[in-house]
Amino acid sequence: MNAEIIAVGSELLTPFRQDTNSLYLTRRLDSLGVEVAFKTIVGDSREHIRDAVRTALFRCEVVILTGGLGPTEDDLTRDAVAAGLGVELYRDPDLIAKLYARFAARQIKMPSNNERQCDVVRGAAVLPNAGGTAPGQWIETRFEGQPRLIMLLPGPPWELEKMFEAECEPRLREKLPPAFIATRSLRVALVAESTCDARIAPIYGQYPGVRTTILAGGGDIEINLRACSESLETAQARVDELAGKLEDELGDCVYSNRGESLEQIVGYYLQMRNSTLATAESCTGGLLAERITSISGSSRYYLGGAVTYHNELKTLFAGVPPLMIQGHGAVSPEVATAMAESIRHDCNATLGVAITGIAGPTGGTPQKPVGLVYIALHDGVKTEVVERQFPGDRARIRQFAAHQALDMIRRRLM
Amino acid sequence: MNAEIIAVGSELLTPFRQDTNSLYLTRRLDSLGVEVAFKTIVGDSREHIRDAVRTALFRCEVVILTGGLGPTEDDLTRDAVAAGLGVELYRDPDLIAKLYARFAARQIKMPSNNERQCDVVRGAAVLPNAGGTAPGQWIETRFEGQPRLIMLLPGPPWELEKMFEAECEPRLREKLPPAFIATRSLRVALVAESTCDARIAPIYGQYPGVRTTILAGGGDIEINLRACSESLETAQARVDELAGKLEDELGDCVYSNRGESLEQIVGYYLQMRNSTLATAESCTGGLLAERITSISGSSRYYLGGAVTYHNELKTLFAGVPPLMIQGHGAVSPEVATAMAESIRHDCNATLGVAITGIAGPTGGTPQKPVGLVYIALHDGVKTEVVERQFPGDRARIRQFAAHQALDMIRRRLM
Repeated sequence: MNAEIIAVGSELLTPFRQDTNSLYLTRRLDSLGVEVAFKTIVGDSREHIRDAVRTALFRCEVVILTGGLGPTEDDLTRDAVAAGLGVELYRDPDLIAKLYARFAARQIKMPSNNERQCDVVRGAAVLPNAGGTAPGQWIETRFEGQPRLIMLLPGPPWELEKMFEAECEPRLREKLPPAFIATRSLRVALVAESTCDARIAPIYGQYPGVRTTILAGGGDIEINLRACSESLETAQARVDELAGKLEDELGDCVYSNRGESLEQIVGYYLQMRNSTLATAESCTGGLLAERITSISGSSRYYLGGAVTYHNELKTLFAGVPPLMIQGHGAVSPEVATAMAESIRHDCNATLGVAITGIAGPTGGTPQKPVGLVYIALHDGVKTEVVERQFPGDRARIRQFAAHQALDMIRRRLM
Repeated sequence: MNAEIIAVGSELLTPFRQDTNSLYLTRRLDSLGVEVAFKTIVGDSREHIRDAVRTALFRCEVVILTGGLGPTEDDLTRDAVAAGLGVELYRDPDLIAKLYARFAARQIKMPSNNERQCDVVRGAAVLPNAGGTAPGQWIETRFEGQPRLIMLLPGPPWELEKMFEAECEPRLREKLPPAFIATRSLRVALVAESTCDARIAPIYGQYPGVRTTILAGGGDIEINLRACSESLETAQARVDELAGKLEDELGDCVYSNRGESLEQIVGYYLQMRNSTLATAESCTGGLLAERITSISGSSRYYLGGAVTYHNELKTLFAGVPPLMIQGHGAVSPEVATAMAESIRHDCNATLGVAITGIAGPTGGTPQKPVGLVYIALHDGVKTEVVERQFPGDRARIRQFAAHQALDMIRRRLM
């Protein structure tokens, strides 16, 4: 069974806003075995929505519209779907009574334009909205002789998600043959996308039954595998077999085979080893600390650290002798090493990690160009320091540097 | 003139990846006076692409396809467009020669499937690709008797953007009446979206000639205004007049009327006042420092600071007496104040700012629930400390807290 998602709203045709509900819906439909074949984005125009609905009904068995169910003149989805199907729209008196009661319970007088939300496409089942006032609609019909399912869902994500799970999924399951879908997500740090793909394409190419999607950015690669089969065991076996072969090929560059983020994995390892961590950051300016502390429970292994942006703070908080900065420069393996050793010692941590570099766009020299970063990791016995020349703009260089630091911690704890 | 953007690629129909080229294209088309009326996302299927092209040609004057121009069997855009128009596809010998030369210059033997990239729709102008191997195509044709423009652009954003600006914009300008478009972007901190809209809707409602788009998230609101007119002066006067009225209504909650971020504005103010800043963060774990240092040149006013995640580090790096933490708790106005004063003093900064709170999801108590945050700002004379109860999950609470801290700095420097 295939589906089209139509996102309605003129704001989705501006440079500022994007339809994101379709990502959520695609994930849920995927897990039911319904394939999204088209997505359409259309503005608040009755004719445009109507034509988009008709086009979708020609080519897809399931048509889901999101948005345009509110009370204003711009909310035209109900109208346009009725027009597209050539059926009547009627105002449901029960819904009107409920809506008035809802407003009354909050001691607010209902503006009369809210009654528009009670317009129902003839033949539709009304879907209650647990998170807002606009009900959804579920329509089973035929179009040019073919059976079609149409859903009208509200635009706000929390309303849409609740309604889809409570109302649409159970109904959809009844219509579908049982689908058994297995997924796996491998994550890989600090390998170029093209290098990674060149290594794994010959492998996943042998598994046409597994859909392989590769996402890359900021030094991270996510390899998503998905298989659909007549039984869950078969589907799972297929993705697991491919995941295993990809892991064999990529070795310890794979930091997770269950989709966790690198900061999550580092957290697992630190807890497993009963270790603690302190950080001293210059060019990343807190990004490493921010990523580590984005994980709930990180206070169990992360102590804190310093953002030593100005050179004097490298001395104050990370014990770097001023003469060392004068002699080697703030961006040097010596300073990175001193920062890592000092922050570990002062914070009484198992591991100390430090980053110093030139994030740009200014501040580079021929000897020390933009993108040059030193990262040091000290464990109380020895210090590992790496030099990297990262590509890209300020934001990417900082991302790469923080990612590299996390990966060094992971490898040390492996 | 209206346009449809068709993004081609099966990966854009997964839950993992989204078409973003259309946001860029919409921005550029907006500035030329071309209105995007539809966006369609379609997978790597010859029939689906062909049908999407025909649907688009029925309803729009400009049709832009992105993606599907590479060398693999999955790259079907050229094929499908030719089929949709009912014209021939031919392999251009000049392009083949150039492509072989390109590979030869890099001393790489060209795989023969690359020749597919030299297929040209009969009647199309070939658009050179400065960033990659896949040329684009520009087609001027008629469909059902109506004039139509079709562009085939590569999927990778940097290739697409270069090609659009170098090849498509000049050609498009020739086809269009001159359009005069003015924009303004107001940014507002820490006002609820519904409150903001209730205050400004009666005002922008009086300007139907200005398109107003409101984006909100993480305590920030962006109000984008756009007007199109017969002269730039008229268009500019219209958005400026509305922007002025909105600023009058929202007062000093508006931190920028040119679209700058709050961290940029804080940077301007700090430089203007010749001031420096130091930070001490607990629950935000470096997010505030990260945002400040995301701005190039922030080393001129930001000294650095501490991430005092563990309580002992609040004492070590931010001078908080252990007895104070015992007596009042780490999340208290007293500790926030002590952190701000100490970090300012130790770093020798003009301003010291500190954040301590409960980001959750665990760690809350009835007295100190998740979302409770204290933020203190010290300027050497007095300390301002605010208590906030932020809604949402861990990530949102941290975002709100960092945003609130930046806004306090802005207001102090105003």
